[in-house]
Amino acid sequence: MGKYKIYGDPISGNCLKVRWTADLLGVSYDWIDVDVLSGYTRSEEFLAINPSGQVPAIVLPDGRSLSQSNAIVLYLASLYDSALVPKDLFERAKVNEWLFWEQYSHEPYIAVRRFQKAYLGKSDSELDPRLLANGKRALAQMSDQLSRTPFLAGENLTVADIALVAYTRVAHEGGFDLDEFPNLRSWVARVESALGVDPVGGAA
Amino acid sequence: MGKYKIYGDPISGNCLKVRWTADLLGVSYDWIDVDVLSGYTRSEEFLAINPSGQVPAIVLPDGRSLSQSNAIVLYLASLYDSALVPKDLFERAKVNEWLFWEQYSHEPYIAVRRFQKAYLGKSDSELDPRLLANGKRALAQMSDQLSRTPFLAGENLTVADIALVAYTRVAHEGGFDLDEFPNLRSWVARVESALGVDPVGGAA
Repeated sequence: MGKYKIYGDPISGNCLKVRWTADLLGVSYDWIDVDVLSGYTRSEEFLAINPSGQVPAIVLPDGRSLSQSNAIVLYLASLYDSALVPKDLFERAKVNEWLFWEQYSHEPYIAVRRFQKAYLGKSDSELDPRLLANGKRALAQMSDQLSRTPFLAGENLTVADIALVAYTRVAHEGGFDLDEFPNLRSWVARVESALGVDPVGGAA
Repeated sequence: MGKYKIYGDPISGNCLKVRWTADLLGVSYDWIDVDVLSGYTRSEEFLAINPSGQVPAIVLPDGRSLSQSNAIVLYLASLYDSALVPKDLFERAKVNEWLFWEQYSHEPYIAVRRFQKAYLGKSDSELDPRLLANGKRALAQMSDQLSRTPFLAGENLTVADIALVAYTRVAHEGGFDLDEFPNLRSWVARVESALGVDPVGGAA
């Protein structure tokens, strides 16, 4: 099998999800660094790969392309027949539930507040207060699940953990205090270790 | 197989996705009407079913519950081994790509603007202008795809069409003019017909 191309920006958790999944599966790929602040994702060249103008995007060895971080990690894990996507339909549905929840109820608050604070340099008073409130609610919901099971979808690591750890591990950069949720901290460490990813730290 | 319970509000496209999919598959279910404006979704009783406090949610005959509209339709279609979810992994990935895109780049603009206008009675000047701009961009992207294929993920109806038609068919209630996109209008009619759903109209 030839090489994949992964277009991504390493500051983006959505892009790192794809890199980590590919690394864990042993997928052979070229990483194409894309600076999301440069405007390249709105260029004609890139829109031919992803009409949404967003990274990550991957180009398969046969030239077909795919976007949406969670669709990509599901695809790669399924293609490699990995236990990161459970075979049992209900277990798989719970993984999907977390993946959709991540994009709707976690990323738009936690990733967005982090981007605005850490990369656009906005002060707290310039930020929509709903970002903090809804982000905290998302973290509390994860913490609640992780008080019952070691991983989000149950006993084993799945793509749901990969998707959710991406921005949770850097939530402190968005002003979220993980010390409020000790079991989130230990889950982050557990997932980072499983992925072979260096701990980002995050001490307050 | 016993009966499913579907908790949903018929004004919510996310809930209708689940109803339409269940009807198309011939799933036997009880529909439990939930008024999203009533606060019931934040009650202890409902949070035990879905800790996110959102409809739709389903309870399986064995008592397990599942939420997130797109996770539910994927689950039901897979359980019934339906062609609504393609077997081919790349084709399935394209369906997932649209499903994640729907929740991130379509619903937060088109459904939200419709809800604020039609159900909360807000005037245009009270609405975030990004809702209109980003919603239009989403419709244009769908229209572009549908200029190449009869359905979003290719030649056949999939859960991607069910998910996207839910709010696109009522986009006019949010002030979006589908007359700008004639091929979206004909796709809406095609999908409504396949689902056996009465046309909502939407003439300006």
